Amino acid sequence: VKAAVLGAGNWGTTFAQVLCDAGTETVLYARDPEVADEITSRHSNERYLPGIPLTPALSATSEIGVALDGASVVALAVPAQKLRPLLREWTPLIPRDALLVSLMKGIEHDTCQRMSEVIVSALDVPAARVAVVSGPNLAPEIARREIAATVVACSDASGTAALQKSCHAPYFRPYTDDDVAGCELSGAAKNVIAIAVGMAVGLGLGDNTKATLITRGLAEIGRLGAAMGARARTFAGLAGMGDLVATCSSPLSRNRSFGALLGSGVPVDEALSRMSQTAEGPASCEPLLTLSKRYGAEMPITAVVAQVLRNNLTVKEAAVVLASRSAKPEWYDTDGV
Amino acid sequence: VKAAVLGAGNWGTTFAQVLCDAGTETVLYARDPEVADEITSRHSNERYLPGIPLTPALSATSEIGVALDGASVVALAVPAQKLRPLLREWTPLIPRDALLVSLMKGIEHDTCQRMSEVIVSALDVPAARVAVVSGPNLAPEIARREIAATVVACSDASGTAALQKSCHAPYFRPYTDDDVAGCELSGAAKNVIAIAVGMAVGLGLGDNTKATLITRGLAEIGRLGAAMGARARTFAGLAGMGDLVATCSSPLSRNRSFGALLGSGVPVDEALSRMSQTAEGPASCEPLLTLSKRYGAEMPITAVVAQVLRNNLTVKEAAVVLASRSAKPEWYDTDGV
Repeated sequence: VKAAVLGAGNWGTTFAQVLCDAGTETVLYARDPEVADEITSRHSNERYLPGIPLTPALSATSEIGVALDGASVVALAVPAQKLRPLLREWTPLIPRDALLVSLMKGIEHDTCQRMSEVIVSALDVPAARVAVVSGPNLAPEIARREIAATVVACSDASGTAALQKSCHAPYFRPYTDDDVAGCELSGAAKNVIAIAVGMAVGLGLGDNTKATLITRGLAEIGRLGAAMGARARTFAGLAGMGDLVATCSSPLSRNRSFGALLGSGVPVDEALSRMSQTAEGPASCEPLLTLSKRYGAEMPITAVVAQVLRNNLTVKEAAVVLASRSAKPEWYDTDGV
Repeated sequence: VKAAVLGAGNWGTTFAQVLCDAGTETVLYARDPEVADEITSRHSNERYLPGIPLTPALSATSEIGVALDGASVVALAVPAQKLRPLLREWTPLIPRDALLVSLMKGIEHDTCQRMSEVIVSALDVPAARVAVVSGPNLAPEIARREIAATVVACSDASGTAALQKSCHAPYFRPYTDDDVAGCELSGAAKNVIAIAVGMAVGLGLGDNTKATLITRGLAEIGRLGAAMGARARTFAGLAGMGDLVATCSSPLSRNRSFGALLGSGVPVDEALSRMSQTAEGPASCEPLLTLSKRYGAEMPITAVVAQVLRNNLTVKEAAVVLASRSAKPEWYDTDGV
């Protein structure tokens, strides 16, 4: 097995190291030749994982053909909104029959598609060849080889088994599942909830408010998932609640940090421009809202965040709405969870 | 309506202020005359809510008869293991037909009873006269009048309605429910999970590990609840996930702080003696484990914490067991949630 990881942001770099530590031969593709060179020769990625030494077993390249040559596992870790054009470019170089793995957590803006759906449609491959990795996986902690668990999901059991084997490192424990849609919806939607929690943090609200937002947030994510046919237990598991709690608890989370900027009074445009790496929540917010309307699943927190991002609501007005709404209907879901 | 709150720890004092702010005439009982006097005349409780000014509307007394005289709502906020003997003492003074409200989150050691069950059996009253309050309610935040929501539960709808009305303050939003057992099990069991999270914090583990423990913790609490006939949605709501996330996230949590002391190498006995106010988790751990065996619901995290408290396992050994187990079976529950 040779794996290629495409995208050398903090999670792409970290997952490539996990693959190496699991004994899988891995090449990381970085668009920037200097980043590729730094990873290969100095074993670090100071821009995205400052101060963290990487394994010497990991080599990187800025030549996409070199990265993809002979790869049987191709993991994608590029910004969600850039995935489709990049895949179009890379199509001829992607080995036939490779397992395509999405490490991304977003929803495509124009199509409302999940990342695995974008891969299927852009590459015209069967869904059985596409897998996802999702869980409470803050990259810097895993890059430092702190213990973590995740979920690897694919509709095809041989795909999950191959992926599980290729990334099972001593400190990284992948559990298998087949609910690809549930894992992806959780992963994308939790970023929007993290923005709301960040806003609360920026406004100086406390842990009671945060916990209430997280709880109501999971309820609305689960509501959308149920309406779209995902499995309820996925939302209660590591890829659902686990990922949500980790993201909303950690100052390392980009989406929470983005929300905290808004909460402390920074305008939306300026907060966006201050992010050194793409926070997926802002771009996924509108497509999630579109899905929630299409499937008739109420998502009050997501709707409020969308209003703030459109500059239709100030953060303080949002807080008032969220405080009065977020916990309002303990149970108005179809059948409770 | 006159309310009596018995017990002037941080949550008893805070809830008494919530009742006052909701327009309910309230007397707080403090065992120590000096504490009662400080609350009444200086409007503070420096021992349990340092630096927080209390409403002048709140008066306290150290005479239990004065506190209970004419009370139609009697809220109990004493250490869980002391509830039964105190109720025996107070029985003749408790007004007939008063609504008895448990603010406590524990399981009685010898009987494995929830607090509402102890009230029913000690006072020989019908369960319909006993209500509970449970949610993401870190006392110091609410004492500072930061926005929070909670669940008030009683098997009798008129009981929940009365309680909801008496404590609905501008910053404190109570939702009604009838799953008393589910709320109480969540409230008690989450304290043990908070000890485990505290241990992880003390050992220097990160947010991925914490989120994994919280997720697996809710799964095992829900497993016990399902086996005991509580409603699944309670565990996904504010009294379940909400309370768990708030407690496990906050340095203000006593049980998490207790766990953090263990994690940083303090022996069990010394950590217990360092707590200025009762942490309910340590005493509730064994009865929860007994219940888990009685009802056939596996609770691996609770079992590991119990081993540590018995000095049968070091914290480092516990971490190894938890790391390998806490996320192990994504789904081995009866039917998944």
